[in-house]
Amino acid sequence: MNRPLHGGNLNWAATVAGCPVSLLTDFSASINPLGTPKTAIASIINNISQLTVYPDPGYADLRSHLAKYHKIDHKFILPGNGSAELLTWAARELAQQKFTYLITPAFSDYARALNAFDGKIYPCPLPLNSCKGELPFAPSPQTSPLPIPISPRSESGLLLNNPHNPTGKLWTREEILPCLQQFSLVVVDEAFMDFLMPSEEQSLIPLIGKYPNLVILRSLTKFYSLPGLRIGYAIAHPERLQKWQKWRDPWSVNALAVVATKAAIQDQEFQQQTWNWLATARSRLFEQLQAIPGLHPFPSAANYLLVKTEISATKLQEKLLTNYQIVIRDCLSFPELGDRYFRIAVRLPAENDRLVEAIAAIV
Amino acid sequence: MNRPLHGGNLNWAATVAGCPVSLLTDFSASINPLGTPKTAIASIINNISQLTVYPDPGYADLRSHLAKYHKIDHKFILPGNGSAELLTWAARELAQQKFTYLITPAFSDYARALNAFDGKIYPCPLPLNSCKGELPFAPSPQTSPLPIPISPRSESGLLLNNPHNPTGKLWTREEILPCLQQFSLVVVDEAFMDFLMPSEEQSLIPLIGKYPNLVILRSLTKFYSLPGLRIGYAIAHPERLQKWQKWRDPWSVNALAVVATKAAIQDQEFQQQTWNWLATARSRLFEQLQAIPGLHPFPSAANYLLVKTEISATKLQEKLLTNYQIVIRDCLSFPELGDRYFRIAVRLPAENDRLVEAIAAIV
Repeated sequence: MNRPLHGGNLNWAATVAGCPVSLLTDFSASINPLGTPKTAIASIINNISQLTVYPDPGYADLRSHLAKYHKIDHKFILPGNGSAELLTWAARELAQQKFTYLITPAFSDYARALNAFDGKIYPCPLPLNSCKGELPFAPSPQTSPLPIPISPRSESGLLLNNPHNPTGKLWTREEILPCLQQFSLVVVDEAFMDFLMPSEEQSLIPLIGKYPNLVILRSLTKFYSLPGLRIGYAIAHPERLQKWQKWRDPWSVNALAVVATKAAIQDQEFQQQTWNWLATARSRLFEQLQAIPGLHPFPSAANYLLVKTEISATKLQEKLLTNYQIVIRDCLSFPELGDRYFRIAVRLPAENDRLVEAIAAIV
Repeated sequence: MNRPLHGGNLNWAATVAGCPVSLLTDFSASINPLGTPKTAIASIINNISQLTVYPDPGYADLRSHLAKYHKIDHKFILPGNGSAELLTWAARELAQQKFTYLITPAFSDYARALNAFDGKIYPCPLPLNSCKGELPFAPSPQTSPLPIPISPRSESGLLLNNPHNPTGKLWTREEILPCLQQFSLVVVDEAFMDFLMPSEEQSLIPLIGKYPNLVILRSLTKFYSLPGLRIGYAIAHPERLQKWQKWRDPWSVNALAVVATKAAIQDQEFQQQTWNWLATARSRLFEQLQAIPGLHPFPSAANYLLVKTEISATKLQEKLLTNYQIVIRDCLSFPELGDRYFRIAVRLPAENDRLVEAIAAIV
C-alpha cells in the first residue's frame, strides 16, 4: 500500500501498524479531538428523512444562518462540498492570472487545484530556519511580514493559508492588507481560523465588502470534527460566487451537511470548550516536545504543531506506528520540508502525554 | 420567489401552494416513492461515528463493492458527489471536442456543465410530434434510431440520456453501438437505468472494456430515493478517471454516502419491490391519463411520464398546487417543449389516483 499524500489516510497506517483503524491514535489529521458537537449529530439524526428530497440549489436557509453567524450579507456566502471543492473553483480563477504566488511549504491540495487548470505557481518560501523558539517569521522592520518578493503583481494572484499549514504561523489582518491592494486576486484559506478565540482571530471576513478581489475559504471539517461530512464555504463578492455556481453542479452540498452546519455554528458551548482545551493542551505539548533533545517544535496559532527533528521523521513515524499504534504526519508531501520535519495534531491531554512518552522512548 | 429551473425545488412550490413543504405531494422530482431502503438508513445511523474521519481518497472499499455489483474491474469506477459532479468533469472533456451532439429536449444541467467549459452544443431534436401512443421515435428501416444527422463526427462528442429524460424513451444497446464507433467521446447518463428490470435494461456497462471513448454516469439518487445524500459514479477507462481525480478534490464523496451505497446496492428485496411497483403503477397511470381528453402521455421506460397537454401546463401546475398541494414538473426549462408539456413521476397507486382525479377536475 502506498504512503498517503494527505494526513488522515488511516487505512495505510493501520496496515503498517498491523491493527484495525479503530485502535489507532491519529495525530496525523488536525481534527478537533472533542469530536463532532452532539448538537450537530442530533440534527443529522432528526433530519435523516430529508435525504429523500433534493437540497435547495440556492441553499438560502444555510446561507442565511452562516450570514447571521459572520454578520455579513448572505449573498457573499457560497457553501460547498468541503472547502476543497471551493478551492477547485478558486484555483480556476487563480489560473487565469499570470502567476499564483504561493507561500511554501503549502498544503498539497493547492497544487492539485492550480495544476487542474494549468495555473502557474510562483513559490514564496517561508524562512523556516530562522525559527529559534520564539514566534517564527516575526517581521523585522526591513522585511515584509509575508515572504513575497517585490515584483509586478497586478496580474497575479495570491493563495494564502492563515493560520498557515503546516507551520501554524498566523498573519495579522494588517500584515495581509497590503496584498489586497497589490494582487488582482487574493484567496485566503482560513480552514483553521475557528481555533482562535474571537479576541485573537485574524479573519479577513470583515473586509469582504471592500475587496472584490478577495476570496475567503472556511471549513467545518477541523473545528467541528466533520471531515467525513464534507462542508465548507467561500466568502467573496456575489458576482464571483454566482459565476462559480454556474460552473459547478446545483446540489453540491448534501442535506445532512446543511442541518449539521446550522446546529454546529450555533453551539457556543462546544466552541468555548474547544478554545479552553486548546490553549492549555497546546502549550503543554509544545513545552514537552521542546524538552526532548533533538526536537524543535514551532510555535503555532492552530491546533497542530510542526516539529523539526534531528532524526528521520519517517523512521520515527514507523516506530510510533508499529510500537504504539500512534499516527503522526510525515512532511514528505511538502518538498521544502522532507524527512526532518513532522506534524502532529494537538489532542486530549492524556493522548498528548502518551505521544510525548512514546517519542521520548524512541529518539 | 423565482420559478425553479429543476424539479424538486419544493420551497417555491410550498410558497405557491401556501402550505409547508411537508404537506406537498411531489410529482416533480422523479424519485422512487418507496423511499430510501431501510438498510441504507440503518447503515448511515450505525456509521455516524465515521464523520470524524476523512474518507479514503481512493474510495477503495466503495469501488470494490460497486465493481462486484456490476461485475467489472474496480479501476473502471469513480464515485462522485452525485452524478452531477461527474457530469462536470465529463463536460470538461466533451468541451475539448469540436461539438457535443446533444439529444433535445435535454436535462438542463447538461447545458450548465458544457457551458462551464465553453463547450459547443450541436442540438439533435427528437421528433416528438410523431408520438401517437405507440413507443415514440420507433426506428423506421430508413432512419437511424438516434436522431443524429449524418456528418463528420470524429472530432465530436455525444451526450446521451438513456432512458431519456423527459420522454422516458429507451434506446437499445444495439441502437447506441454505432455511435461508439463514430464519436470520439460518448457520455451516456444512465441515471434512470436501475428502474428497468435486469431482463430489460440496456446499460452499456458490459461494453466498457471495449470502448475507451465511453463514459457511463450512474446515480443512486432516483432509484434509492437519496437526492439529499449526493452519490453517483462514473464508469469509464481507468486513465480517464485518474485524470478526473487529479482535477477534482480528494474527498468528493461523503462518508455517509459511502456506507449507504454499499447497503443499498445489496438490497435485492428493495430492488424487486421497486420493479414490481413500477410495472403496474406506470401502466395504470398511463392509461388513466390517456383517458383524459386533451392529454397525451408518452410511453416511458422510466419512472416518469411526459404528457402533452392541449391546455397550458403552467396553469395546470398552478391549480394543482393551490387546490390540491400537488407538484408537477412544468417543462419550461426544456425550450423545445415549453408550456404544452408537463412531466410527472410515477408514485404510489393511491397518490397517482389522486393526481389523476385532480387533473380530471381541472381540465
